[in-house]
Amino acid sequence: MDMKVELIAYTPEPEATVAAAARLCYSSRGAVGLKEALTDAEAASLIKRLISMGHLSPTEHASFTFAIEGVSRALSHQLVRHRIASYSQKSQRYVDENNFSYIVPPSIAAQPDALELYRKAMEELREAYRKLAGVVPREDARYLLPNAAETKLVCTMNARSLYNFFRLRCCRRAQWEIRELALKMREEVRRVAPVLFALAGPSCETEGICWEGEFSCGRAREVRSRGVAADGGDDLGA
Amino acid sequence: MDMKVELIAYTPEPEATVAAAARLCYSSRGAVGLKEALTDAEAASLIKRLISMGHLSPTEHASFTFAIEGVSRALSHQLVRHRIASYSQKSQRYVDENNFSYIVPPSIAAQPDALELYRKAMEELREAYRKLAGVVPREDARYLLPNAAETKLVCTMNARSLYNFFRLRCCRRAQWEIRELALKMREEVRRVAPVLFALAGPSCETEGICWEGEFSCGRAREVRSRGVAADGGDDLGA
Amino acid sequence: MDMKVELIAYTPEPEATVAAAARLCYSSRGAVGLKEALTDAEAASLIKRLISMGHLSPTEHASFTFAIEGVSRALSHQLVRHRIASYSQKSQRYVDENNFSYIVPPSIAAQPDALELYRKAMEELREAYRKLAGVVPREDARYLLPNAAETKLVCTMNARSLYNFFRLRCCRRAQWEIRELALKMREEVRRVAPVLFALAGPSCETEGICWEGEFSCGRAREVRSRGVAADGGDDLGA
Amino acid sequence: MDMKVELIAYTPEPEATVAAAARLCYSSRGAVGLKEALTDAEAASLIKRLISMGHLSPTEHASFTFAIEGVSRALSHQLVRHRIASYSQKSQRYVDENNFSYIVPPSIAAQPDALELYRKAMEELREAYRKLAGVVPREDARYLLPNAAETKLVCTMNARSLYNFFRLRCCRRAQWEIRELALKMREEVRRVAPVLFALAGPSCETEGICWEGEFSCGRAREVRSRGVAADGGDDLGA
Repeated sequence: MDMKVELIAYTPEPEATVAAAARLCYSSRGAVGLKEALTDAEAASLIKRLISMGHLSPTEHASFTFAIEGVSRALSHQLVRHRIASYSQKSQRYVDENNFSYIVPPSIAAQPDALELYRKAMEELREAYRKLAGVVPREDARYLLPNAAETKLVCTMNARSLYNFFRLRCCRRAQWEIRELALKMREEVRRVAPVLFALAGPSCETEGICWEGEFSCGRAREVRSRGVAADGGDDLGA
Repeated sequence: MDMKVELIAYTPEPEATVAAAARLCYSSRGAVGLKEALTDAEAASLIKRLISMGHLSPTEHASFTFAIEGVSRALSHQLVRHRIASYSQKSQRYVDENNFSYIVPPSIAAQPDALELYRKAMEELREAYRKLAGVVPREDARYLLPNAAETKLVCTMNARSLYNFFRLRCCRRAQWEIRELALKMREEVRRVAPVLFALAGPSCETEGICWEGEFSCGRAREVRSRGVAADGGDDLGA
Repeated sequence: MDMKVELIAYTPEPEATVAAAARLCYSSRGAVGLKEALTDAEAASLIKRLISMGHLSPTEHASFTFAIEGVSRALSHQLVRHRIASYSQKSQRYVDENNFSYIVPPSIAAQPDALELYRKAMEELREAYRKLAGVVPREDARYLLPNAAETKLVCTMNARSLYNFFRLRCCRRAQWEIRELALKMREEVRRVAPVLFALAGPSCETEGICWEGEFSCGRAREVRSRGVAADGGDDLGA
Repeated sequence: MDMKVELIAYTPEPEATVAAAARLCYSSRGAVGLKEALTDAEAASLIKRLISMGHLSPTEHASFTFAIEGVSRALSHQLVRHRIASYSQKSQRYVDENNFSYIVPPSIAAQPDALELYRKAMEELREAYRKLAGVVPREDARYLLPNAAETKLVCTMNARSLYNFFRLRCCRRAQWEIRELALKMREEVRRVAPVLFALAGPSCETEGICWEGEFSCGRAREVRSRGVAADGGDDLGA
């Protein structure tokens, strides 16, 4: 089951909206009509300045809504810990999970013996679930379901919350599945708001700084030696 | 100075977005493509059901951004107490307020003597501000500025937060200026999401219940006698 | 594995603290010293009034921290959806789960065949986990772990957030495990702040109103016929 | 009117509480009893490690409640923009402000002419307020009141939110009044949780980094030359 991430809705003209809000703070011009009064180049330059100074509050005015599927309940349990966000998730209490799909971690997929053991365990869980779901409520049968079970979500975050999310979850030390999600989400939002998200990512990419101490992957050093932000940022192939 | 409220950005197709998120929770269909799969009538019926049962979390996926001007700092201080929201506001620390505009409460406007006293006080404050701003930083001169001083904001709330805002601030017991703002904001969002906001308002309008105890205006009783929600809701003329 | 809930820390004198904050709003007295100036009876009377009028914001000044164990990951995934709260949770990425404990739903415990099937499935998962954890990282082996797997959390909520939590999760229609948790948490806080939490619970108990529509358990009707709030509230034996 | 800040309530043993929550994440020990099992030295060492790695979430379990008076409405309008916090504030709608106190910015106090002008303006506002409050509701008369008018608040923040507050508001570029408040609040919490707040402050103090760009005061450079965190941090005399 492949992870799918689709940006299903977002604030139109996110960069113009953010720039108008930022401009308002320092201007005696009216709020009404301010968005139209900014050129694209002015908006871009204002946004770059905001982000370099860490003045992120105006970026909250742009929101992004993602449809996500092909992810595990292990991932969703981590994801929903980000509290400045809105979630709707497929309920295991109400939806029939007789044929639940599941996620396979790459480390397991790479070892035939491990993979066979994993697939067999999943098959047995499906069977046990079907039997239980016949005699107890679905909401109780689901206690059998594994972290691997596939779930679907709709998730909305504003740009500031996404900045925080990308900073933590695009890091190479993040858990692989949520990192894959974060990289896909970042790709989606960069398509529609390239300036706004140009510098969204872990602090190694954006500032040449790593906070992981002894666990650091060493990338901050590499980035510093090439010049901060000269690096395009990680993708899944990296 | 008249209050102006303009909806400058919002999640496109807010009702379809909310309905798709709600549907996901109870369906084994994919999240991707779900929005397109719903007809307008299905979306409307789902939203009505959600709201009548108080299941408001899917409504968080729709966000609304307002440009607001012609309001007082008395209002903005109250407004920003709503924490599930994003604000950008004209700064009195940086913007020159030599000719600040100001708001006149209707109770003052209605009494010529009071109005004259009020206008004179404002004129004197402007003069004192100009003098002070010449010898101390603007951020200190502004200590003179009155609550009445006009401010401008960009404000973003999601639909759930707006529900809460309209419940509290469209109430006849709310302070007149923030109530005027709430009614204008409600008018704006009802234009683009009529089903979503049909039942947004104080509990007297929506449930025939009043929580104000001895301070109740009596409207809940009226509404109950006519049938809850049969009432179109207050407007400023009411 | 039995559920354990312990209140490990909370704002001292929670009721006096809340009452002092509430009193401040309507008084020209100083904030400093206000707490000491209130008698217990005054604090109690003020709190009752706040809650009956739904003015809950002063109750946010009292926070409560719980140690929770003997609960499932099914529960914790639901719990952390409450966003106005703080959580620390045992990590399955780092902690060895070779001998994971698990929760048994009562509907399964009540049927010997179902229970046997369930216990056997758990035993097989333990074995599969042990094998996998030998050849892949723990954070990947845990994809096998079931929703039933026991977890431990420290959770902090303020009184207002607890009000919302108890309203939703003490309801008879809530999922049984999180309802058990909510009832235990309510018992704990009522011990140290009886006035503050006297009326915390589902709207049937507190207002004689049910929002569940066709799914209502009928309790609101019972409560209304006896008089709202005359009812002591549900416990797990009910 | 002098600013007064008093810590009126806080989570008992804040450092032990935070350390227990942090320890839980990486341990198979029970949550119940964990707090007692940690020595003070272990708690301190764990907290230092958390903070140096930026893992601040366990610090949310400790909350701090302040009574604040002798501050201006200019300050309170800024303060309540911090949304991860709880506030109760003296209401100008209900409280009689006939003899309102007011704050004098130091830049004004330092210039006799400016001060005289300022005091005279305040005197005239008091008089105008008294007249207006006789003929219109208090909530409308208050439109005259200046930003300088004294207000009182009760404010609760958890340690993580305080970290953010101190980072922004202890900075020398912050507005003088809110900076004075932040320094006083920091002094209060350092008294009861010295390890937890040892490194709370602007990024120049804690990391030798400044984000203010061309507006930097130069302190980050000084701190770097002496070694990060060797500096005790600013106080108002600095």
